[in-house]
Formats: sequence, structure tokens, C-alpha cells
Amino acid sequence: MMEQVYGITMGDSSGVGPEIVLSAWRDGQIRHRVVVYGDWSALDYYNRRLGLGVELRKAPSVAELLEGALNVIDFGLMRAEEVTPGQLNRQSGHAAREYVIAAARAALEGEIAAMVTLPMNKEATQLSDSGFVGHTELIAAVCGVSDVAIMLVSEQLIVTHVSTHVSMRTAVEMVKQERIRTVLRMTVEAVRKLKANPRIAVAGLNPHAGENGLFGDEEIREIRPAVEWARSQGMPVEGPLPPDTVFYLAVRKKKYDAVVCMYHDQGHAPLKLLDFEGSVNVALGLPILRTSVDHGTAFDIAGQGVASTASFASALELAARMAAATRRCGYTIV
Amino acid sequence: MMEQVYGITMGDSSGVGPEIVLSAWRDGQIRHRVVVYGDWSALDYYNRRLGLGVELRKAPSVAELLEGALNVIDFGLMRAEEVTPGQLNRQSGHAAREYVIAAARAALEGEIAAMVTLPMNKEATQLSDSGFVGHTELIAAVCGVSDVAIMLVSEQLIVTHVSTHVSMRTAVEMVKQERIRTVLRMTVEAVRKLKANPRIAVAGLNPHAGENGLFGDEEIREIRPAVEWARSQGMPVEGPLPPDTVFYLAVRKKKYDAVVCMYHDQGHAPLKLLDFEGSVNVALGLPILRTSVDHGTAFDIAGQGVASTASFASALELAARMAAATRRCGYTIV
Repeated sequence: MMEQVYGITMGDSSGVGPEIVLSAWRDGQIRHRVVVYGDWSALDYYNRRLGLGVELRKAPSVAELLEGALNVIDFGLMRAEEVTPGQLNRQSGHAAREYVIAAARAALEGEIAAMVTLPMNKEATQLSDSGFVGHTELIAAVCGVSDVAIMLVSEQLIVTHVSTHVSMRTAVEMVKQERIRTVLRMTVEAVRKLKANPRIAVAGLNPHAGENGLFGDEEIREIRPAVEWARSQGMPVEGPLPPDTVFYLAVRKKKYDAVVCMYHDQGHAPLKLLDFEGSVNVALGLPILRTSVDHGTAFDIAGQGVASTASFASALELAARMAAATRRCGYTIV
Repeated sequence: MMEQVYGITMGDSSGVGPEIVLSAWRDGQIRHRVVVYGDWSALDYYNRRLGLGVELRKAPSVAELLEGALNVIDFGLMRAEEVTPGQLNRQSGHAAREYVIAAARAALEGEIAAMVTLPMNKEATQLSDSGFVGHTELIAAVCGVSDVAIMLVSEQLIVTHVSTHVSMRTAVEMVKQERIRTVLRMTVEAVRKLKANPRIAVAGLNPHAGENGLFGDEEIREIRPAVEWARSQGMPVEGPLPPDTVFYLAVRKKKYDAVVCMYHDQGHAPLKLLDFEGSVNVALGLPILRTSVDHGTAFDIAGQGVASTASFASALELAARMAAATRRCGYTIV
């Protein structure tokens, strides 16, 4: 069987995306067949600027990749002189969106086994598409789904989230049985692709998981019934557990392989404390595999050649592991 | 000058408090002049049960301590045969409350330089005092103050909290300028007793600290004005910072000595992940010094001699450090 191809989206050309894929290639961190969805001229610009010496090639299609070179599906949307490291660029924001749409379609059609995304800049993309909400939402729209969740994976800890980019006030409102059931299902399916017989903890929302309703009743009304439902379906989940000790139990005591979190920072803060540079973002709920670096465009260091490739290298490896597990187990849309 | 005396409250005799002070004494972890507020018979019970061989002495007063023995201000509220390791005990809950009231009064009167508390059991104390809310609230009432805050101190991280034992829904409501100002003031005063020229970070409430009002406006309406006020008063505070990276910046990048948190788990989760056993709880806003172990009565292991003394030993050392700084700098009620 032909080796799978992984699609990499270059991201906003004003950010660190192009130099990260180039540096990772030069440093031998890309150990799979890949193709970059992006602009040849922008990649060439950074390749020359940073003296990376990567052999770049315009690939006519995903089916026609050349060994030994970094293959690029060239969108021809940026000219070298239009590349503006560190600066908000309308054309670059527009182009980054096009790469993602094309890669998501290629994944849906099975041309690529997974997509690995480098950072877009929300503000830049909004200059040409005022309705743009976010990277994940864009991919979900291409795939025709709306119920997604974010999983962060690092060596020591895996977390998923009932809500992400909403206020804490809204996050509290979103702690509802139905949504929690969905995220439990997505989490179990995804973590099973990474670990055999996973044990999954579910964090509470309130201090001490509410202490039997003393500090909030979301644990009693919403979280516990969802956990009980999931257990009745055979899912290996436990909780709700006190949010201040569940990470200690998972990471230090190795009691759990993943923690389902009730809001963005509940999962993000411990994960970033443990592994700031190497963590990977996985979109759950999509009919395709998509991993992403867990950082932004980093305009402040773009074009300097100092951006870490750790998260990108991990994102590609994780995509490959999950793709292999998907081939073994089949893919269920959750 | 006579060496300062530190008062230790024994805590609930059904829990791990008595054996912790005995084990710490036997292991040479108590390097200061101390007196235990508790019951001689209960201590004697655990001393014999666990074969610890500690020389226990009933002290007539704090002014008359004997070198070489563990001095006990004996309340005579428990008989040895009434001690019930691991079991909810009305008399023990009542006695634990009495030790704390007496030690707080002794601290107010300057007889002891600080009080170090071992765990009470809320349920047990409520059997005789249905209005009992918590350890810190009890001490605050003895001291006649109501505005308190909790600081957790570990080797790698110090956190304080705008709210603690309330639901997340209430915690969001408590993010108000006036309360934040109070906690900033208390934090700066307390951290200055531990570090010269501290740098203090203030976490936001919402993901990405609200991203300019996109996910909640508490940062704009409440937190930022409080931080600006504090800076105008010369306090070394910065923020609001994104809650998912502030701990990374403080701990890994050593950029901050302490983080002011907006709710219980924001501070407790990273701290417990980093140092589960050695962290110490300090009450801020009291006119006395009080440190506490950062764990509960642990009924499940009481009487087995396996409870860790790490948090207690740290709590005593921290009380001594803060007492020394207080003697140098004077004490301001914040």
C-alpha cells in the first residue's frame, strides 16, 4: 500500500508558520510523506531570508509528489514582495483561509490522511472575511458539522473541553448534560486511538466538585448524570472529581490518561504549565483528522528563524498515530 | 530576647493532626519553640498506639515551657477511650474548635508569634456548632475581621484568591474592583514578607483574559482598573494576564513570584499539580499570623502513622519566616 500523505497548511505568511515547516523539514523532523498547502513564493521568501536551503517543489497534485523535496500545492495568492513578516496582511489572511478550505476538502475526499495546521491570524482573515470565527469553526463548516470540541495532547497530559472560547459566565451555562455526553463520547473515541484501555477522569465545575451541592449544583444536575450515562454505555470515565486534584491524580499518580474539562483554562492552564512548547491541538467531532500546533502566529518573532518547531513536529506525529489507529479501527463520526 | 513561641492547634482527634505533630517532633522537623493547643490524652493515645516515644508534657502556660519535651496546653476535653480514629466524633469536633479559639486569642495577645493549624473536620464540628462555616472564618471571627483571603505557598509557586469556597457562578460575580483591590493589597504585603522586591501577576477571569472583551468584560470593567489603582499605589503588580499562560510564566520562566487568582481552582489546580504534599495555606487579612497544612483530616488513613508531615513542617517554617519579617517590618492590618 502506498504510504499515506499528510497535508500541512502553511498558515498566515506574516506569522511563524512558513518558517516552522521549512525548519522542521531541514532538521529532519518530518518523517512522513507530506504536502504543504500554501504559497510557493512565501515559502521561498523565508527559505532564502533564513538561508535554510530547503528544496522546494511545486507539486501538480497530491498524487504526484517528488521524493527528497518539500512538495507544495501552490495557490499563487502571494508574491514574494507581498510577504510582510510580523504585520497584519489582508491578502495573507485571505490566502491562509484558502489553504485550510482546500486541505479540509482533500481530507474529506481521502486524498490526505490528515491535515496538520499552522497558525492563521484571526484579525488578518477577518479583514477579507468579516464572518470568520476561527480555524476550527472554518474546518467544521467545510465538513458540514457543528458539534466540535478541542483536545490538547502533551506527553504527560491529555485534556478535552466542554467549552473553549467563551466567557466564564457563558462557560458555566454550557455545563449541560447533552453537551457533556457529546464531549465524553468524542473524548473516549479519540483517546482510544492513542492508548489501549484508557481511563478518563471528568473534572467538576465548582471547587471540591461542589462538595455535595454546597458550592454549586452543576455536578449533581448535569455532570454526574452524564458520567453515569457514559458508564452505562461502557465508557471508561470517572467523575466528577475535584478540579484542583484531578490533574495531580492524572499526571503524578498516573491514575488517568485524560481529563475532560468543563472550561478552557481548566484544561489549558495545567497543560501549558507542564509542556508549553510541545503540546498539540486535536479537533474532535470532525469526520476528518486534524491536528494543529498549540500556538499562534507569533508576529513578534516571525521571520527571525527562532520559532520552536516542537509543537508542529508533535502535531505531525500525532496525526500519523491517529491516522494509523483510524485505519485499524475505522472512523466513527461521534 | 526570648525565642518566639509558635502555637500549634492539634485539630480533630479523629484525623491525622495529632499523629502529624508527634511524628514531626520525633523526626526532628520542629526546630522552633512550640506549644500544642490540644488534648494531652489524645496525643498520648496516638503516641502509644504508634509507638512514637515522644515525651509529652502538660504545660501550665505558654510562659512555662520545658525544653526537650513536647509541651501541651491541655484542654481536658477528650479521654483516651473517647478517641475514635477515622470516625466522625461530636466531642472531638467541639474540642478542635476550642483549641483554635484559644490559640487565636493567644496570638492576638502576643503570647505566641503565630498559630499553625492542623485540620479540623467541618462535619464533626457542625455536630455541636451548626453555624460553623470553616477554620479560617472561625479565626477571623475571633479576630473581629471579615475580609480575608487565602494564600497557598509552595516552593515553586505562591497563589492568592479573590474567592475560594463558592460556586463558579458566584465566583464570577465576586470579580469586582473593590474585592480585587483588597486582595492585591493583602497579597503584596504578605509576599513582601517572603521575598524582597516581589513581582506579582494578576490572572484574568476569562480565556485569553477576555481577548479585549470578546469573551467576557470582567478584565476591562473590574480587573484592569484594580491593577491600575494598585500600580498607582506603587504595588508591583501586572495584569490581567491570560490564565492559561500566567503559571507557565511564573513557574517555568520565573517571571513572577506570585499569582493573584480570580477563583479557587485557578490557583489550587496548578499548585497541587506542582507540589501536592508540601504546600502551605496562609490566611491573609488577619491581625495575627496563621499558617495551616494544605490538607484535611484524612479520616481514611488516621491512626496508621502514614500521614505525610511535609505540609505541617513547611507550615511551621513559613510561620517562622513570616513572623521574623513581621518583627522587622511591623504589621499592618490590610
